[in-house]
Amino acid sequence: MGMPIELNTMIVTKGNETREEENIFRLAKDGYRLYPIDIPIDVRKTIQSDTSGTAVIQKVEWTSEKTIITYELLSLNSTN
Amino acid sequence: MGMPIELNTMIVTKGNETREEENIFRLAKDGYRLYPIDIPIDVRKTIQSDTSGTAVIQKVEWTSEKTIITYELLSLNSTN
Amino acid sequence: MGMPIELNTMIVTKGNETREEENIFRLAKDGYRLYPIDIPIDVRKTIQSDTSGTAVIQKVEWTSEKTIITYELLSLNSTN
Amino acid sequence: MGMPIELNTMIVTKGNETREEENIFRLAKDGYRLYPIDIPIDVRKTIQSDTSGTAVIQKVEWTSEKTIITYELLSLNSTN
Repeated sequence: MGMPIELNTMIVTKGNETREEENIFRLAKDGYRLYPIDIPIDVRKTIQSDTSGTAVIQKVEWTSEKTIITYELLSLNSTN
Repeated sequence: MGMPIELNTMIVTKGNETREEENIFRLAKDGYRLYPIDIPIDVRKTIQSDTSGTAVIQKVEWTSEKTIITYELLSLNSTN
Repeated sequence: MGMPIELNTMIVTKGNETREEENIFRLAKDGYRLYPIDIPIDVRKTIQSDTSGTAVIQKVEWTSEKTIITYELLSLNSTN
Repeated sequence: MGMPIELNTMIVTKGNETREEENIFRLAKDGYRLYPIDIPIDVRKTIQSDTSGTAVIQKVEWTSEKTIITYELLSLNSTN
């Protein structure tokens, strides 16, 4: 009967993000996910990878068993 | 540090809903609120009032410290 | 990576509750479940069954992928 | 009507933790707080301070408008 939610503490992009504006990205994930909003959190490409930057989620949308987040990338960890 | 969320188990409209389509309504509430989605829940005009109907939330949006829900009204309790 | 949680809006006992005191019951459920606490909610024996009463959850414990709730039964819907 | 919850992504001790066993600590916080459980998270003395270590929460208890967490400290960031 209950509603499954996944508590997430970081953004894992798996390279699926799309750029909306200069530093604003949009990412769709399966299922309903609870993210901290308005708070700086880690961005990673995969769960195992190192942090690739810090972002603040500005918007979370839940619909049709998907979660769409819009986030502003604050800093990028360059590794080259 | 944490992010305040309010767990809600019913929709309390306070008469602020707007009709989007035949049975589809949209309602903005202050703060970030966690609602059960895709599950029939009670709709009331105020917390103290009797149930005015049953609805299923189809979409939840969190942004700028507001929560906007889109819900389909399934049944209305007529009381006249 | 995320942590799965199930949002629950009522207590479904499946007859697994144990009485602790006069009107105080304890119930263990699989997984981590988010229940409204300190608020009257429905108690049912199964998801499909009618409400068997109203209870207020007084304590929620999450450990070892189980959720243990302690609740006070406020009213019973007698059906005989 | 709703139930206020605070989503927390790290443990902020403010020096209020008590040692239960070798690496097991217990900490009470005001209000109902949602923490990631069974997942390594940061431990800090204050919100502004640097990470003082990493811990895994083993148990979360919600009762009487308090949250009590039991966590295992996995690593300490020594700074001397």
